[in-house]
Amino acid sequence: MKHENNSKLKIIPLGGLEQIGMNITAFEYEDSIIVVDCGLAFPEDDMLGIDLVIPDITYLKNNADRVKGFVITHGHEDHIGALPYVLKQLNVPVYGTKLTIGLIDNKLEEHNLTRSVKRKVIRHGQSINLGAFRIEFIKTNHSIADASALAIFSPAGIVIHTGDFKVDYTPVFGDAIDLQRFGELGKKGVLALMCDSTNAERPGFTMSERTVGKTFDNIFAEHKNTRIIIATFASNVDRVQQIINSAYKYGRKVVIEGRSMVNVITTAAELGYLDIPENTLIDIETMKNYPDEQMVLVTTGSQGESMAALSRMAANMHRKVQVKSGDTVILSSNPIPGNEKAVSKIINELTMMGANVIFQDVHVSGHACQEEIKLIYSLVHPKYAIPVHGEYRHMKAQADIAASLGIPKDNIFILHSGDVLELDEKKAEISGHVPCGSILVDGLGVGDVGNIVLRDRQHLAEDGILIVVLTLERFSNQLLSGPDIVSRGFVYVRESEGLMEEARHVVEDAITDCMDKHVSDWGKIKNVIKDSLSDFLWKRTKRSPMILPIIMEV
Amino acid sequence: MKHENNSKLKIIPLGGLEQIGMNITAFEYEDSIIVVDCGLAFPEDDMLGIDLVIPDITYLKNNADRVKGFVITHGHEDHIGALPYVLKQLNVPVYGTKLTIGLIDNKLEEHNLTRSVKRKVIRHGQSINLGAFRIEFIKTNHSIADASALAIFSPAGIVIHTGDFKVDYTPVFGDAIDLQRFGELGKKGVLALMCDSTNAERPGFTMSERTVGKTFDNIFAEHKNTRIIIATFASNVDRVQQIINSAYKYGRKVVIEGRSMVNVITTAAELGYLDIPENTLIDIETMKNYPDEQMVLVTTGSQGESMAALSRMAANMHRKVQVKSGDTVILSSNPIPGNEKAVSKIINELTMMGANVIFQDVHVSGHACQEEIKLIYSLVHPKYAIPVHGEYRHMKAQADIAASLGIPKDNIFILHSGDVLELDEKKAEISGHVPCGSILVDGLGVGDVGNIVLRDRQHLAEDGILIVVLTLERFSNQLLSGPDIVSRGFVYVRESEGLMEEARHVVEDAITDCMDKHVSDWGKIKNVIKDSLSDFLWKRTKRSPMILPIIMEV
Repeated sequence: MKHENNSKLKIIPLGGLEQIGMNITAFEYEDSIIVVDCGLAFPEDDMLGIDLVIPDITYLKNNADRVKGFVITHGHEDHIGALPYVLKQLNVPVYGTKLTIGLIDNKLEEHNLTRSVKRKVIRHGQSINLGAFRIEFIKTNHSIADASALAIFSPAGIVIHTGDFKVDYTPVFGDAIDLQRFGELGKKGVLALMCDSTNAERPGFTMSERTVGKTFDNIFAEHKNTRIIIATFASNVDRVQQIINSAYKYGRKVVIEGRSMVNVITTAAELGYLDIPENTLIDIETMKNYPDEQMVLVTTGSQGESMAALSRMAANMHRKVQVKSGDTVILSSNPIPGNEKAVSKIINELTMMGANVIFQDVHVSGHACQEEIKLIYSLVHPKYAIPVHGEYRHMKAQADIAASLGIPKDNIFILHSGDVLELDEKKAEISGHVPCGSILVDGLGVGDVGNIVLRDRQHLAEDGILIVVLTLERFSNQLLSGPDIVSRGFVYVRESEGLMEEARHVVEDAITDCMDKHVSDWGKIKNVIKDSLSDFLWKRTKRSPMILPIIMEV
Repeated sequence: MKHENNSKLKIIPLGGLEQIGMNITAFEYEDSIIVVDCGLAFPEDDMLGIDLVIPDITYLKNNADRVKGFVITHGHEDHIGALPYVLKQLNVPVYGTKLTIGLIDNKLEEHNLTRSVKRKVIRHGQSINLGAFRIEFIKTNHSIADASALAIFSPAGIVIHTGDFKVDYTPVFGDAIDLQRFGELGKKGVLALMCDSTNAERPGFTMSERTVGKTFDNIFAEHKNTRIIIATFASNVDRVQQIINSAYKYGRKVVIEGRSMVNVITTAAELGYLDIPENTLIDIETMKNYPDEQMVLVTTGSQGESMAALSRMAANMHRKVQVKSGDTVILSSNPIPGNEKAVSKIINELTMMGANVIFQDVHVSGHACQEEIKLIYSLVHPKYAIPVHGEYRHMKAQADIAASLGIPKDNIFILHSGDVLELDEKKAEISGHVPCGSILVDGLGVGDVGNIVLRDRQHLAEDGILIVVLTLERFSNQLLSGPDIVSRGFVYVRESEGLMEEARHVVEDAITDCMDKHVSDWGKIKNVIKDSLSDFLWKRTKRSPMILPIIMEV
């Protein structure tokens, strides 16, 4: 039965726009919904105490019977990290390539979900049918192996979603991006292209991952007599492969250190994504049996993450590795915006320990620069352009590229999370909005911390808290004890005894005033205490700590 | 009387090393002490609620009778910002060039110190005698006008302190750096060179400030039909001069916006450091009388500072300026490490408003790169090298440069704050340490917030606070009311009613247990409450809020 093709395709990003991370996009056609990726975001600086951020999937839950599954482009946290949380609320199958599913399996195990959730491994070039959709996985290159673009076939047309990608003609593992297939689909006619914007502000072409291998060889050749420590992203399997290659070439043993890297590398090795020569990888415990010049330590923490292995080494708090004078330490990554100071701190600490720290030109990006974006547009030649993955500035930069390639401005859509873009061959427009947002995860709590709690944390962080406690007689409202003032995070109480004593008098006067005026409403008494104490402290210190009056009754 | 020259010179940095900012260094010879610079630092990320950081000058106070004065290299906050606080504790004269003293005057006025503190303006080439020292001010170039290097003549030899500097052969205002004088002193023989390390990791030469003027001209020529808004550092008078030049050339009026920029520009104009064509500068209130294409707005906030004018414009919260589609906004500065995300946020917001944001290649640094550092070393040819101004990695990079120029490694000193370096022609060594450190300024409080208070703020920021209040009968220790639990910054109480109710039971059980065991020591009762509640909350939420039991007695 040929479809009538009266319906439109709906593209609904539920996260990942106007922010880095938390990528999740629903595709809807009549009674079928599929979801591309399900990532987490790391908390912003003002999200005090928050561990991670996941998308609000109210829209998907409200349409649970129509959701056919999650289709995952690659195994990075910002594309898979929210799955365990979301699958607890919406149990549907998950599709992805082998390494991607392997990494998802690790996550589901941690959350005891391996039994209840169905996963399926898809090969590049293979398609799956989910309701009204057929989804084809297309080989791409990225800073993690097994990354895919998706060709999403719907009765309204084909949408190509690149996922995170770059064009690497000489990848370390496996094939180059399947440019032919992009071209073939382009010839057929593509309705819309959703393309990675991360590097859309950068001119030129991203260098091949293989160039980093050459740099490693050069550094290994130059530093034959020292221990080498290399920090990089835990998930960059190809980078670790190249370190192993250089180590083997120069007769060094390799130790992998840092929990997340051990996890990823173990999974990647089991699934055949790493080629490790015999006797090259050794356990950290046996490291002491080898002289420094025969060792390479590969570790996490290249972003200055405070709990990662490299930070612990730099702070001399690592139980098994002491950095020493003469060590060569390579930071094989560029700081992600926001991490610059943390990375600089580590460089300072390692330099102070006498290490020779190499941090320039030992990394390439996993994302397409402007010329690669132009290449994909030229192959795919979409009717509509929908930049994805990046902050607004990056999506705008891609929109400008698309326009420069002749796509009419009205056919370029910079969407916001929650927008519903309805499209077919004739027309595309934002037809509505669905609920969306960020759910904060703090410890075991998912969603029990929101704006009010964060505002309180911010307030407490800035100026601390003063608690005023007093006991009133139940019926007469007579003051039986107090007021006592206890403070935390405000001032050194010992050095500010005079101030605290005066503060107590201010509160006493406020209470006496209330009593004299026969104010019996506790809410009012509390407000009078709060206002008078707040005024006093502002005048004396130009600070506004949180003031919390507590009245007990007996 | 010829000096016997048996004594040594002591160089004692009291701040500014291992950190950016808070530059202050004492030079001591027998009974004479002079102090070079007196800057503040901005708080680190973990200094919650702190406004600024000033040096601990205990050592100077303990030797107050020997301190002859402050000699200031230039008018940036990290070189003059702590003066008002320090001069309240140690009233000695302050010496500097005209613009530097002008900016110091502004600060002293804010602190009502203009009457009590003696300031003296020194010209480049001029010297002053302070006790055993003669100090000569040498013309340099930097991102603020009137910057000086100092040649410090002591009986033990000459020390040259570059201050912050670059080599600009074609400066916007005044002369190029006085390289001849550096050479002349080098020929005489220089004991030690203390040279700016900020850009010591960067190869090559810093471009002339004048190149930015050409860039402005090009941008003005290309954007003749839009309003232009340019954000830069408030103190970069030469940058503002070049904006004024371009504006005049292209028939635009200039508005200066942002309190700190208005202050600096007013002072600079009054003292003759700005050449403003008649009718070019207009008041922000009259801006509405001119069409967009005749306006340039110069503003603060190029670093994304949340309260600065540009941030308020980007957030649509500026009372007098609304950014609109088509505006050209230029960020004429590079993000200082740590400010990247804040700057990116502003670029996103402005782009979303439809502005065309230009932020690449519209800035040059004010600090010397590697080739300039080599030039100064080659002219001065010091016996000892003491890198200053920068984090450890930067000072180490300069030490490597000094070594590459033939200075023996034993003659290169990377000092730490508080080190006492004793030196003369024969020998240099670290002979001791003096007290030093950071004093935190929070509102009006100077030094009343320290590590314990900061640790409490950090704890409160992470997980909030639970306050447990109960009232006991004075003699019987009988529970008269409570326990009441009040929380702030922990969870949404309404959505976590069950949890809070359980928490109350846990506390009740703990109290009952204490009563049963006749525990009467309040300290012990509080600890039992704290421990049991803490255990319960960790098990249930994997969080550790601050727990504060308060016992009232009646």
